[in-house]
Amino acid sequence: MNNKILIVGGVAGGASVAARIRRLDETAEVIMFEKGPNVSFSNCCLPNHLSGMIKNSEDLVLMCPENFKKQYNIEARVNNEVTKIDKDKKVLVVRDLETGQYYEETYDSLFLAPGANPIVPKFEGCSNPNVFTVKNVVDIDKLNKFVQNGVKDIVVVGGGFIGVEVAENLKLSAAGFNVTLVEQADQIMAPFDYDMVQILHKELTDKGVNLIVSDGIAKITDDYAQLASGKKIVAQAVVMAIGVTPDTKLAVEAGLEIGNTRGILVNHNYQTSDPNIYAVGDAIEVYHQITHSKTKLALAGPAQKQARSAADSLYGIPTRNAGVIGSSCIKIFEMNAASTGLTEKAAKLAGFQFDSVYIIPGDIVGIMPGNSPLFFKLVFEVPTGKILGAQAIGKGDATKRIDVIATMITMGGTLEDLKELELCYAPAFSTAKDPVNFAALVAHNIINGVFKQVHVSAVRELVEHKAFIIDAREPHEYERSHLINSVNIPLSQFRQRLDEIPKDQPVYVHCRSGQRSYNMVKALGQLGFDNIWNISGSYLGISMYEYFNDKMQNRKPIVTDYNFN
Amino acid sequence: MNNKILIVGGVAGGASVAARIRRLDETAEVIMFEKGPNVSFSNCCLPNHLSGMIKNSEDLVLMCPENFKKQYNIEARVNNEVTKIDKDKKVLVVRDLETGQYYEETYDSLFLAPGANPIVPKFEGCSNPNVFTVKNVVDIDKLNKFVQNGVKDIVVVGGGFIGVEVAENLKLSAAGFNVTLVEQADQIMAPFDYDMVQILHKELTDKGVNLIVSDGIAKITDDYAQLASGKKIVAQAVVMAIGVTPDTKLAVEAGLEIGNTRGILVNHNYQTSDPNIYAVGDAIEVYHQITHSKTKLALAGPAQKQARSAADSLYGIPTRNAGVIGSSCIKIFEMNAASTGLTEKAAKLAGFQFDSVYIIPGDIVGIMPGNSPLFFKLVFEVPTGKILGAQAIGKGDATKRIDVIATMITMGGTLEDLKELELCYAPAFSTAKDPVNFAALVAHNIINGVFKQVHVSAVRELVEHKAFIIDAREPHEYERSHLINSVNIPLSQFRQRLDEIPKDQPVYVHCRSGQRSYNMVKALGQLGFDNIWNISGSYLGISMYEYFNDKMQNRKPIVTDYNFN
Repeated sequence: MNNKILIVGGVAGGASVAARIRRLDETAEVIMFEKGPNVSFSNCCLPNHLSGMIKNSEDLVLMCPENFKKQYNIEARVNNEVTKIDKDKKVLVVRDLETGQYYEETYDSLFLAPGANPIVPKFEGCSNPNVFTVKNVVDIDKLNKFVQNGVKDIVVVGGGFIGVEVAENLKLSAAGFNVTLVEQADQIMAPFDYDMVQILHKELTDKGVNLIVSDGIAKITDDYAQLASGKKIVAQAVVMAIGVTPDTKLAVEAGLEIGNTRGILVNHNYQTSDPNIYAVGDAIEVYHQITHSKTKLALAGPAQKQARSAADSLYGIPTRNAGVIGSSCIKIFEMNAASTGLTEKAAKLAGFQFDSVYIIPGDIVGIMPGNSPLFFKLVFEVPTGKILGAQAIGKGDATKRIDVIATMITMGGTLEDLKELELCYAPAFSTAKDPVNFAALVAHNIINGVFKQVHVSAVRELVEHKAFIIDAREPHEYERSHLINSVNIPLSQFRQRLDEIPKDQPVYVHCRSGQRSYNMVKALGQLGFDNIWNISGSYLGISMYEYFNDKMQNRKPIVTDYNFN
Repeated sequence: MNNKILIVGGVAGGASVAARIRRLDETAEVIMFEKGPNVSFSNCCLPNHLSGMIKNSEDLVLMCPENFKKQYNIEARVNNEVTKIDKDKKVLVVRDLETGQYYEETYDSLFLAPGANPIVPKFEGCSNPNVFTVKNVVDIDKLNKFVQNGVKDIVVVGGGFIGVEVAENLKLSAAGFNVTLVEQADQIMAPFDYDMVQILHKELTDKGVNLIVSDGIAKITDDYAQLASGKKIVAQAVVMAIGVTPDTKLAVEAGLEIGNTRGILVNHNYQTSDPNIYAVGDAIEVYHQITHSKTKLALAGPAQKQARSAADSLYGIPTRNAGVIGSSCIKIFEMNAASTGLTEKAAKLAGFQFDSVYIIPGDIVGIMPGNSPLFFKLVFEVPTGKILGAQAIGKGDATKRIDVIATMITMGGTLEDLKELELCYAPAFSTAKDPVNFAALVAHNIINGVFKQVHVSAVRELVEHKAFIIDAREPHEYERSHLINSVNIPLSQFRQRLDEIPKDQPVYVHCRSGQRSYNMVKALGQLGFDNIWNISGSYLGISMYEYFNDKMQNRKPIVTDYNFN
């Protein structure tokens, strides 16, 4: 019945479908079509070829057609483009790109895993030979050869995963490129909120990438890129990475239903509107576990899970469609950044009632070599305390904390669950109270009204309006750098200096990372001060928030001096 | 009402109680008694002073009494030993160790956080001046000064966390010590099963620690330690770290109830049998979330959580006692090892019906620099698929995976939940299918009877009885090293060599790390072979399992050559 199975696309989704089918059915005839010259390559590693981290582009290919045949008895036809699906006759029309010949192939079941295509809008010079996109090994090879051949200045357009990774890897290349990264929105990396992403803006800038936000591409010539603002950037090569769009051409032409998000519509089992055709990966729309709405998610992990489920479904094995939550991570120079679930922005868009906390605890025990601050933000539903999302950035183990939050979200965890969670602790790996425990404790206080907070985004206005801001750090820290107009009343002195703290106006408290201000805020609350606010994120968070924009806009800083230690 | 609060013990539990009370009550009088000269030091970092990783022992002290006073308005009386509790009069008798004077201090509420004491059994030489224990900064200072003063050979007795960390740090010291680690049981590190711990045995041995298991200490002189077996080990210093016992002396003498596990008995709120007295930390017995029984757990994380809950309880804040699951981790030279929940041994003891899978996937994407195998074992309940525990060991991120499992266990997760779990993925941090997903998939197959498995512990007998074992790796891998008597039928060739595989006897299949054997086992099952067994852990797991014991016992290996690549 399922004797002959065809698969369109041979990367994450397609190759996983093929391998799973073989494990379920030793006798099925399985043919996988890939229009490019390679199947089963590592999409996610493509940018690493530009830095030389992965020296040979052939290493990006994980399995050749010969091995697919030998190990899985699967025929992988590379350089074969499927041009049409006749779903009534159950026939594919295929073009052999080497001979140019068209041929037909019948199927019992069909799996679509065509992926997504880079978006390149129309503008002057957009199809010049020095303009590149990055979708596969051929693309990255072409780009790398071009830039290694005398190019000095490169503009990367688009601050998503691919754009940032391409920019970073170009900058890391021994060739010493001048790299400009241009993003139309006011921030790169949508999985991070505006406050958190400033840490990544700073890291890119500090490491020499010329980062430009709130500007788009308008024109490309042989030696410069002109932005929407009119600004001209010297560039002999431009990489377009403003986003991807599901490759639904075949599906649309075959009359398969397309969802509202423009991905191929699938049911619980990844079946399309034609029961003999399944679709998985970047080309489909998926169900979001938290927002309960359809969305698109171009990530390899979910694609592999979908592939397995779709194959199982064909063989009558019930599948569990858990939906997606959107867990992702990226390494940007020295910073590890990870995110799961909803950002504040996404929670707002989805109509949630929510709040967030921003803490900056140590990644590991402070006296251990290599310790560094972990910037951690937790987004939670109000009043339920249900965990909605989290973002972590630091030189230490950010993905670990976000994986724990992803697990909590999936299992319906609340702040109560998270604050008591017993995780592994040894000084080389974490702190006795893990950052996730710490965040849940602070959030639990907020949701219970134990103290009030303002976010780092509000601090500039507070400073400019001469609000009463207490800096609870020690004098030597205050001297090194502090918020303009802030008053230094260290935690170690405040009980003797209560008369300096006004009762007739709001008082805002911060320290370096939030621990000392937390203690002072709680004490002041008990000492009859009832208009006390903790600044979530504290001095480190404020500095990070302001740094990049001050630099970009030549804006007057609200700190006397930037200091991130 | 709670005006005067006394705390016995000033480390993890005691200091956390003090700080939490101050946050809850600015006006309470809080006095913390510590018989040693330091409060609030990092227990867990003590061994790191021996390697010089933490150069100055003063750095181990996180907060001095002066700062407790200034920041928290808490009196920390060091060198003050509480010698008696009169719970009827609500009075402590305290001895000032500097003056030798006794004095009394009344309380409204009392918190006990005395910790646990190292166990030193009686034997010849057990109290010699060259015999040390490690409980606090004074101990580690004394030990370090002694060994740095001409000592060349050191014996550490006890293969738990402290013993192993002391042995490792001594070996890492620039002084070039000969270090012997002696453990009475047949393995070190109880949080790991016998199969997993062999990786740690190998690591210690490979890095030059003379590891002796199944032997105890019998006698210590100035220049050697004699073991129970009669073996003499040259040693000018001996560290005793065979375990700790809750310090319940004060509690017992005061007539407080002690639990069956010999820890102080506490209720949900960490109240002892006297409602005015709370107890937290290593001295108490706790409730195990998975086994539903009382246990002891000398870990800093739970101690801090208990401290907070106990203080909250005093102030009428309801606490949630989640029980413990036992999450722990350790760095041993290059190996990161972590464990949570129940080992197989513990699951058996607790009467669970369970099974386990042992997989060895890559920690990160295989083409990324720095990738390494992650040895991962998952223990699950049969037939429910409830996750009971996991152990991970490797050069990569072991704690991350175990933290995810700890979260799953806490939230009542099953294999179904774990296999679908969407975690962060980027090539530098993990694989698209994370090792925890992979383990759940394999376990899900086992529990559903999709294929059968044997564990690495069974392989020696199979080899000795000339069972039919297929090595599914490629010929060049087989040539480098293989199981004696195994037949090399690579996954890439087996479909053409089916006639070589017998149908009238069990057939066992392994490859390097389990992926190829999984595919072959599934295919053979469909091709009419119904007595096919996968060897869980595969070649890498078998080699790890056998290596240390072969070396220790001069036993004939069951592999032609050890190879761990």
